[in-house]
Amino acid sequence: MSTDRLSATFAALADPTRRAILARLALGETSVTELAAPFDISLPAISKHLKVLEHAGLIRRGRAAQWRPCRLEAAPLKEANGWLEEYRGFWEESFDRLDAYLRQVQSRAKKRARKK
Amino acid sequence: MSTDRLSATFAALADPTRRAILARLALGETSVTELAAPFDISLPAISKHLKVLEHAGLIRRGRAAQWRPCRLEAAPLKEANGWLEEYRGFWEESFDRLDAYLRQVQSRAKKRARKK
Repeated sequence: MSTDRLSATFAALADPTRRAILARLALGETSVTELAAPFDISLPAISKHLKVLEHAGLIRRGRAAQWRPCRLEAAPLKEANGWLEEYRGFWEESFDRLDAYLRQVQSRAKKRARKK
Repeated sequence: MSTDRLSATFAALADPTRRAILARLALGETSVTELAAPFDISLPAISKHLKVLEHAGLIRRGRAAQWRPCRLEAAPLKEANGWLEEYRGFWEESFDRLDAYLRQVQSRAKKRARKK
């Protein structure tokens, strides 16, 4: 797998557990044990996910000896969002086209109703 | 790897060649041969990337027998953008904090300069 930063970010986001971890951390920093609690997977599995997130720069872990709290780091998300924003024109355009089509269908239906 | 749609989208975007293919398709639909031309990789390798993009619903391929043009499909990008937008508060907040910090540093430097 490629290791450029944007690729690492998207790869880290390509897993529902990792996205759920980020959603939890959006509520505030927490310990790994607390983080693992709602998930039905082992602590080593959670640790592996945290390593992927940390490698992508999406989380940072505290240095406190006993309690190493995880914190969300938003900079890579901003970068990924910036990449996606370049394509905004495309999805807005396709919704405009759908909107125009639906209005056309509606107007035809009204005309037909008037004829009856 | 998980196969939910959002995961498939992020996984498809986690590769610079696939992102370059989407950037090329943003300029208009094109054939696979034309699409492969600027890349220093084999046609089978390009085909593999296209399959990943197609599986994620990010491209659609025409049905014309000889010429099967590829087209960008923006709906999954909109969905991925929607997920990221939930975190906008975090990266904007961190820039606000940086901004406040820099202003503080600047104001201290000015005060020091006046004292001299």
